Formats: sequence, structure tokens, C-alpha cells
Amino acid sequence: MSATIIDGKASAARLRAALAEEVAEFTAEHGTPPGLATILIGDDPASAVYVGGKQKACAEVGIKGFDHRPAGDASREEVLALIDELNADPAVSGILCQLPVPDHLDGVELTNRIDAGKDVDGLTIASAGRLALGMDGLRSCTPAGVMVLLEEQGVELQGAECVVLGRSNLFGKPMAQLLLGANATVTMCHSRTRDLGEVCRRADVLIAAVGVPHLVKGDWIKPGAVVIDVGMNRLESGLTGDVDFEAAKDVASAITPVPGGVGPMTIALLLRNTLQAARAQRRATFPS
Amino acid sequence: MSATIIDGKASAARLRAALAEEVAEFTAEHGTPPGLATILIGDDPASAVYVGGKQKACAEVGIKGFDHRPAGDASREEVLALIDELNADPAVSGILCQLPVPDHLDGVELTNRIDAGKDVDGLTIASAGRLALGMDGLRSCTPAGVMVLLEEQGVELQGAECVVLGRSNLFGKPMAQLLLGANATVTMCHSRTRDLGEVCRRADVLIAAVGVPHLVKGDWIKPGAVVIDVGMNRLESGLTGDVDFEAAKDVASAITPVPGGVGPMTIALLLRNTLQAARAQRRATFPS
Ligand SMILES: NC(=O)c1ccc[n+]([C@@H]2O[C@H](COP(=O)([O-])OP(=O)(O)OC[C@H]3O[C@@H](n4cnc5c(N)ncnc54)[C@H](O)[C@@H]3O)[C@@H](O)[C@H]2O)c1
Ligand SMILES: NC(=O)c1ccc[n+]([C@@H]2O[C@H](COP(=O)([O-])OP(=O)(O)OC[C@H]3O[C@@H](n4cnc5c(N)ncnc54)[C@H](O)[C@@H]3O)[C@@H](O)[C@H]2O)c1
Repeated sequence: MSATIIDGKASAARLRAALAEEVAEFTAEHGTPPGLATILIGDDPASAVYVGGKQKACAEVGIKGFDHRPAGDASREEVLALIDELNADPAVSGILCQLPVPDHLDGVELTNRIDAGKDVDGLTIASAGRLALGMDGLRSCTPAGVMVLLEEQGVELQGAECVVLGRSNLFGKPMAQLLLGANATVTMCHSRTRDLGEVCRRADVLIAAVGVPHLVKGDWIKPGAVVIDVGMNRLESGLTGDVDFEAAKDVASAITPVPGGVGPMTIALLLRNTLQAARAQRRATFPS
Repeated sequence: MSATIIDGKASAARLRAALAEEVAEFTAEHGTPPGLATILIGDDPASAVYVGGKQKACAEVGIKGFDHRPAGDASREEVLALIDELNADPAVSGILCQLPVPDHLDGVELTNRIDAGKDVDGLTIASAGRLALGMDGLRSCTPAGVMVLLEEQGVELQGAECVVLGRSNLFGKPMAQLLLGANATVTMCHSRTRDLGEVCRRADVLIAAVGVPHLVKGDWIKPGAVVIDVGMNRLESGLTGDVDFEAAKDVASAITPVPGGVGPMTIALLLRNTLQAARAQRRATFPS
């Protein structure tokens, strides 16, 4: 058996094309486009690349970008005031504060200053709480992107055994909640899990987000399982995932490659979140 | 083998005795006791019994009770104004709105009006979010009570396979988060889980909160497992749990009975939460 290779690049491109149409409709209806404000504090080159990519992606689908770049020594008060201003600005549908922030600032505090209704990264306490309680809201982009990939593959999640490897606030924990919301039986495992291979072998859907190159071996995979590799590990030989892809693809029924699998979905979902936030703000029903 | 029967009544009594001492110290230090405000809307007899029990328990440990009973036809605005008043009252450390509320009111809205710092039931969006993100905060009382029982039994949770049966916002979901926080490998299962028996048989610690009498059979239990039965099912023959206790006690290493297991812990943890909230308010560092 050789697995279907899940083409995240193509999927993200489709999603972005569909979003461009929906954004055009929104703009025609409301007279103004959705807007995404990014806040990049200081001049970390990697962060600048990420933020640049997000702004470019906005422009491509017709979302108005607001590109704020406070200096690396900006005070806490300055940044909080900027966020308050963006929270109050009706042209700004979504706000994201690029992490990490310089040491004298508190990324958690800054993130939580963002209105829940504009939290397009889905990282605030309010967004995490709404997700945990099964309420509507803005979801963390990468797990939301995985849900799109699974849906496109026609993976039946109801009653499926899903194993999520890694429990970060950014990915693993919200991923588990989304799968639970789709009625899967969900196991959360991590660095303290005793026999990781045994736990993984139960999975109909195995999702790895650990940051350890090729941690997941071919014989950790149940024949026919769907494998989603979220890992992005930069090795000398290039970017690689958390799954031993070559071995896994002979066992799995479908698998995401790295690069070109989950990675491209994240920005597409950020755009979708921004449109969702803009719509909800127009309906003015969500979240207060 | 015959399992240790976990005596929740004795455990709750110990906790309440210890809390009485801590409350006395708090009161001596600050000149005023911690305070718990309960809001019971209308005159549902079962709810009145619950609220009465909570008020009585407060009095016993030296927590000042504020017993608010708006009429069954109280307007939304009236109840919200009452909650706002209690949020602002420094004598009130904790607030709980007894659920369910009459049909013309929205229990979720009312609950979420309670300040996160006074949310002693741990049911607000903010409390759920703080728990999900691994931050400090007030936890739902019944799962917090289960953690106390497990700790007292000396159950090693790190790396243990824990299975939580049931995924309510009140119990199952926060229980899973607490176990994850204790470094267990956690599986969440529910009515859509395919082979419940098979999933349960993996558990070193099996926690059932389903509301189906004797759903969990003796042969669903791994020999030596710790079994926590949260179910409270009223049958003609009396109160019974979700676990077939008679069969389970010959397989498990420890098990909670129903009644007298988890049940008595809930109010004790409500008292502990109230003291925790009062302390945090005095430190004025938690949650803003
Ligand atoms: N856009 C994207 O594609 C995207 C988004 C988020 C994360 N990622 C990638 O996913 C990976 C994980 O990132 P993160 O931020 O979710 O997690 P993280 O780095 O914050 O945490 C890693 C998690 O993996 C677990 N872990 C670490 N070593 C382990 C081991 N040997 N065995 C089992 N578990 C182990 C830890 O318990 C922890 O929960 C990284 O490679 C990251 O680059 C990619
Ligand atoms: N203080 C206490 O002791 C305390 C506190 C909370 C709940 N409880 C008791 O725990 C039980 C559950 O209450 P709750 O409010 O947590 O849950 P709930 O009644 O809101 O939900 C029940 C859960 O069980 C699952 N479920 C239902 N039938 C199932 C089946 N046949 N197989 C597998 N899963 C099934 C559902 O998916 C759902 O997640 C009740 O008996 C309740 O009285 C006791």
C-alpha cells in the first residue's frame, strides 16, 4: 500500500481562492474590506518574514492589512495602547501580536489584551475557553487547518480513535478539542507518555506536533491510518517533519508531507478567521 | 483481590476541618472572613436543597454566606445587576449562580457575568480558558475533588493512562485537563466512542461521569486500575453510580463507592475555592 499524499499547498491555494471571492462579496456588501492588523515588536528577522508573509497573503485575497511595527524598546504601555486602539477601530477585524515579543514585555499579557472577537490567532484565554466549552469562536489557525485537510480527505472523525502527540497551547491542546468536538475519541500524549509507540498504534488518525525529527516510526502507525505531520524541523538537509515519512507512507492510507502539508494551511486559516471575525462584527452578536 | 474502597466522606470531612483552620487564620489576618454568595432564582426544591447545603457548609468552616434568592420571574436585568453588585462587593470572595435557571433566563450568560476571580464553580469562559492554557485559576469543584482523592491515594498520575468517560463542561472536560496538567496520558471518550469497553480496559485510572447506571462492567477494568465513579443515578433501589461496583471491586486496586465517594468532595472543594479566591483578591494579583 502506498498512502495518498495530502497536498496542503493545493488545499491552501483553493481555500485562498475561495476566500478572495468571499472577501470581494463582503467588501461589496459593506463598502469596506475586512482588515487584519499585525503587531511586530522589534526587528527579529524570522518574525519579520512571517509577518511579511501574512500581510502579503491579506493583500492577495483583498483583506486590508495594517502593519504595525513598534520599536524593540517600545514600552508595555505603548503596546497596550496600540492594542486598545486597534480593538476600538472598526476597520480592524482581526489583530495578531507576533510572538515571541522582546524580553521586557509579556506575550501572554499582550495577547490577552486583544478583544476575543478580533483574536484571529485564537490564542486568548477567552478563545481557549470558548473552544473548551464548545461555544463558537475563533480557533487557533494550525489545528483549524488540520480540520480542513481531514474534511477534504473525507476522514470520518465520529467515533474514530484520534491520537494527538504534543500538548502545546498553540497546537496540541486546541487540536484535541476540535477533534473531540467532531465526536472522535481523543488521546492526548506528550513527553511524559510511557509507551508512545503503543499509544500511536491505536490511532485511526495520528497527529504529531512535537518538534522532534522523525520521532514517529513506521511501526508506530496502524495500517490504513491517516497521519498528519505538523512538525517543522530545520535540519541541514532541509525542512523535515516529526514522522518518518518514507516508512510511514507505506503503512498509512493518507499522510501530509513536510514541507507542503500542514504548513501552508496556517496562513489560509488566518485569512479565514479574519473574514469570520469581520462578519461576526457586522452581525454584532459575537463575542462581546 | 479486593479493592480499597476510597472513603470520600472521610476525605471531605478532613478537608473541611483543615479549611476551618485556614479560614480562621485568614479571618484573623484580614479582619473579615471569606464570603460566598449563592444566587438561587425561583424555588425549585432540589436546587433549594443544594444551595442550603452549600450555605450550611460555609457556616461550618467560618465562611460568611450571602444567600440571594431572586423570585422565579426576576428579569434578566435584575439578576445581572445583582451579579455586578456582588462582583464589586469586597466582602464577597466567591459567587455561584445555581443552575438550571428559569427558562426566560440564560444560565450561560449569567454564569459568565461572574468575575473570573470570583468564579468558585469554575464554569466561566475565563476559568475554562485559564485551565486549558495551563494558567492558575479556579477549577470546577467535582474534578478538583477527584484530584484530591487521587492524591490522597498516592496514585502516580505522571505517565499513567487515564480514561475519562463523559465530556461535560461541568466535569469530563475539566477533568481531562487536570489529568493532562498532572502529566497523564489522557483519553476522552463519550457516547460516540466505538468500543467503550476496549478503551476503558487500557486505563490505569478510569473515571466515569456518564449518568448511566452500571454502564462500566467488571471486565472493562484493567486489573489493578483505580476507578473513580462520578455518576449519581437515582434508582428506586437508591443512589447508584456509573460503575458495576460489585464486579469492579474484585478487579480494581481502589474504587469510589456511590454514595460516599466523589459526591461529598464537591462542596468541600467549593469551600476551598472560596478561600483561594479570597486569598487571591487580597494579593490582588489574580485574575484581572
Ligand atoms: N504552521 C505550522 O505548520 C506549525 C504550527 C505550530 C507548530 N508547528 C510545529 O509543530 C512542532 C511542535 O510545535 P508546538 O509549538 O505545537 O509544540 P511545543 O514545541 O510548544 O511543544 C512540544 C510538545 O511535544 C511534546 N514532546 C516533546 N518531545 C517529545 C518526545 N520525545 N516524545 C513525546 N512528546 C514530546 C511536549 O510534551 C510538548 O507538548 C514544531 O516542530 C513546530 O515547528 C508547525
Ligand atoms: N457532585 C457530583 O458527584 C457530580 C458532579 C457532576 C456530575 N455528577 C454525575 O455524573 C454524571 C454525569 O454528569 P455530567 O453533568 O458530567 O454529564 P452530562 O449528563 O452533561 O453528560 C453525560 C456525558 O456522558 C456521555 N454519555 C452518555 N451516555 C453514554 C454512553 N452510553 N456511553 C458513553 N458515554 C455516554 C455523553 O457523551 C456526555 O458527555 C451524572 O450521573 C451526574 O449526576 C456528579
